Amino acid sequence: MNNFGYNTEDDIMALATPRMESALAIIRASGRSSIDKFCECFSNASVVKSCAGNCVIYGYVLGVDGSKIDQVLVSVFRNPKSYTGEDMVEISAHGSLAGIELILQRLREVGFRDAEAGEFTLRSFLNGKLDLSQAEAVQEIVSSKSSFAHKTALHSLSGAIKNELIGIKDLLMSTFASVELQLDYAEDDLDEEIEVPLDNLDEAEDRLRRLLASYKSGKILKDGIRIALAGKTNSGKSSLFNLLLKEDRSIVSNIHGTTRDYLEAQLSISGLPITLFDTAGLRLSDDPIEIEGIKRTKNIIENCDIIIFVIDNSKEILSEDLEQLKSLDLEKTIVIQNKQDIDSKFTEINSSKLKDLSSPILLSATTGYGFSELENRIKELAGFSLIDTSVSTVISSQRQKNLIQKCLDNLEIAKKEFKDFALDGFAVDLKEALDSIGEITGDITSDDILNSIFGDFCVGK
Amino acid sequence: MNNFGYNTEDDIMALATPRMESALAIIRASGRSSIDKFCECFSNASVVKSCAGNCVIYGYVLGVDGSKIDQVLVSVFRNPKSYTGEDMVEISAHGSLAGIELILQRLREVGFRDAEAGEFTLRSFLNGKLDLSQAEAVQEIVSSKSSFAHKTALHSLSGAIKNELIGIKDLLMSTFASVELQLDYAEDDLDEEIEVPLDNLDEAEDRLRRLLASYKSGKILKDGIRIALAGKTNSGKSSLFNLLLKEDRSIVSNIHGTTRDYLEAQLSISGLPITLFDTAGLRLSDDPIEIEGIKRTKNIIENCDIIIFVIDNSKEILSEDLEQLKSLDLEKTIVIQNKQDIDSKFTEINSSKLKDLSSPILLSATTGYGFSELENRIKELAGFSLIDTSVSTVISSQRQKNLIQKCLDNLEIAKKEFKDFALDGFAVDLKEALDSIGEITGDITSDDILNSIFGDFCVGK
Repeated sequence: MNNFGYNTEDDIMALATPRMESALAIIRASGRSSIDKFCECFSNASVVKSCAGNCVIYGYVLGVDGSKIDQVLVSVFRNPKSYTGEDMVEISAHGSLAGIELILQRLREVGFRDAEAGEFTLRSFLNGKLDLSQAEAVQEIVSSKSSFAHKTALHSLSGAIKNELIGIKDLLMSTFASVELQLDYAEDDLDEEIEVPLDNLDEAEDRLRRLLASYKSGKILKDGIRIALAGKTNSGKSSLFNLLLKEDRSIVSNIHGTTRDYLEAQLSISGLPITLFDTAGLRLSDDPIEIEGIKRTKNIIENCDIIIFVIDNSKEILSEDLEQLKSLDLEKTIVIQNKQDIDSKFTEINSSKLKDLSSPILLSATTGYGFSELENRIKELAGFSLIDTSVSTVISSQRQKNLIQKCLDNLEIAKKEFKDFALDGFAVDLKEALDSIGEITGDITSDDILNSIFGDFCVGK
Repeated sequence: MNNFGYNTEDDIMALATPRMESALAIIRASGRSSIDKFCECFSNASVVKSCAGNCVIYGYVLGVDGSKIDQVLVSVFRNPKSYTGEDMVEISAHGSLAGIELILQRLREVGFRDAEAGEFTLRSFLNGKLDLSQAEAVQEIVSSKSSFAHKTALHSLSGAIKNELIGIKDLLMSTFASVELQLDYAEDDLDEEIEVPLDNLDEAEDRLRRLLASYKSGKILKDGIRIALAGKTNSGKSSLFNLLLKEDRSIVSNIHGTTRDYLEAQLSISGLPITLFDTAGLRLSDDPIEIEGIKRTKNIIENCDIIIFVIDNSKEILSEDLEQLKSLDLEKTIVIQNKQDIDSKFTEINSSKLKDLSSPILLSATTGYGFSELENRIKELAGFSLIDTSVSTVISSQRQKNLIQKCLDNLEIAKKEFKDFALDGFAVDLKEALDSIGEITGDITSDDILNSIFGDFCVGK
């Protein structure tokens, strides 16, 4: 069977942890012959073959000549009690780059194929372990950058969206069944009055609209807010960057410097995922590399949600600083009078120069003075209060949003047709509304849809 | 009990996979109450509590209010059948940054302490699961950059060094016991002739010397060879860099660009681990950043084992190229006449200009022409043929090398003392030789030694 571009009869394997030196590395393998194939290169094969599922067995991965390749622990899972619903083996090895490659190569030799992105979760879907909304939640969990995003994705994985859609589908189905039945009768007896449970449609619409409304929160929780630090060199941008990182260490990922253009870091403020950019100064230059850097800085500033413009408050603001500030989108700009610890004699002069442009925050990146005000201003600009974190069923996939919108559009047309007594059309559009929901859950699907969903996954998931 | 700066009574935990987004993440926990503590925050606690060791159990990590924090698989290990020899729990979670932090935080709340670097392996040593030579092999496996290095480290972990040392120790012990016995007798009867199995000492010395000799191969296999690409901008250095990476994809780790100075990559040629640097051109500059870059480039070139100097063979070599080449250590330099594909009309002129300096290789980084010759030349310069890859017992730790040397020094003194009939001194030095071996295996140890060994480990190991 060749389904969705993948051969789901194959035994597949992939490294499921990052390809980096670390304490442990996990290699996953799945497929109906996966346990047998793995046993061809494992020292403790007889124990693996005869064990029940969910067992952990110690041993060595062996080369074709029987030599030891690596010392591992192997978790054995038996169909259907596994992630994919197939027989599975998970190899826990020392996290060595050389060892990982040796094991992967050996697995290829005994007949495993390298898994495609998301192929384990695809199999889980094909084997009925997850519906499509749950499968999408898997990747949302992996890529979640805040505790809120993680929580709503976990809720979706547990079936929140799926169950809500089943409820909505039931409402539409009862209406559809009733119309179909009466259309059949109507052919025999045209005088019969048509009675349709329209209340069900109203309730379905309400619930669909609520799901649709959750998308905005869901998107912010998933993608987060982009904040750019702007201002001249030596204004204390970098100290503020470090302060922002330090204040919330909960989810700081890697900071990567790329050339001399900007630094980027992930953090979270009150559970809101933030991508923070420390940009280069915007001075004029004719060095081509610097010009390229300034171009990228401008691009970041244009595409961010919030700009924090930092001014060195130990000096008087120059007119060029004000010009630069004026060139920014002031609606999304927070102005910081930094270095409040050093000297405050310019505070009043600078504040008055800035007063028509913004309400600046007095801050010291060194002592932390003014930080909570900055945090509140960020939350305010990000629309933090509008994010409904109590809604537990949150969609964050564009695909789901579009299908829900399509479903609502069909329902609207259908209701109009009902009023106009166009009962055949009513039935057709109701059916289309149902199909949209079927597409979300994956009851109705195509190769293209599956490829686009699972193609975004990471390998090993 | 507070041993070696760590409290080994604590329940410890650590993320054992890289802190990055990926399919899976593993959090390890160990300690005598680790299973009970974990059960305080696990949905399927009763199953975990009652299960036998080496079982995998599905469930949710729960918050203090019983809310779901993450969906996980938990492997339960029971003392002494675990890595540390204690009760252990390994949590396999979705590889989400947010989820990892939430689980770690929850584990702290129920009483786990963040593990120190190498603390799991330290416990394994303290609980007698590994000797010190095996513990050192664990970190060697993790950091191994080539299949050879991985193989010898795995061999050490399996007990190769340990067993060899036990053999040597037995030889020394039998001599020592015999001397001690006869010294006791000698007090009663001074005329008795002393008979000591000196053959044993000779055999012990032979075997120690063989171990010592393995250190050189071991070090190259562990640390690898550093190769720097030098030459002017546009000479095709970067194409050659990419070609070298492409030809052996087996163990390429991350390539990281740092500012504009150089690129660095890990690869391996015939199992030999290579760190490859693509350096910036060495042109004159008065830009301070560029000057700093050139300083670093020079530093890399001085400290590397092999320089590959690339010349653009589509043009005639300029005298400044020759000057630059002359400034290098020609003993370790391979000269490449690159771009052999474009035009060969300068081949002869250039070759004759270079002939007093080196035997250049004609190469095309585009077509791959000349690559195998380059590979052979690298192996030759790296002393590849001298690396004895058949020796299975290889030491690669400086600490072990120093102790073996110390042991040999003591044996030499002891033998001299024997010849001089200084039998008490003979016994003392023989005992010191034995103690050096005891230090390698960890029979004799101190806080300092353990801290220095395990401090180099990664966290989670």
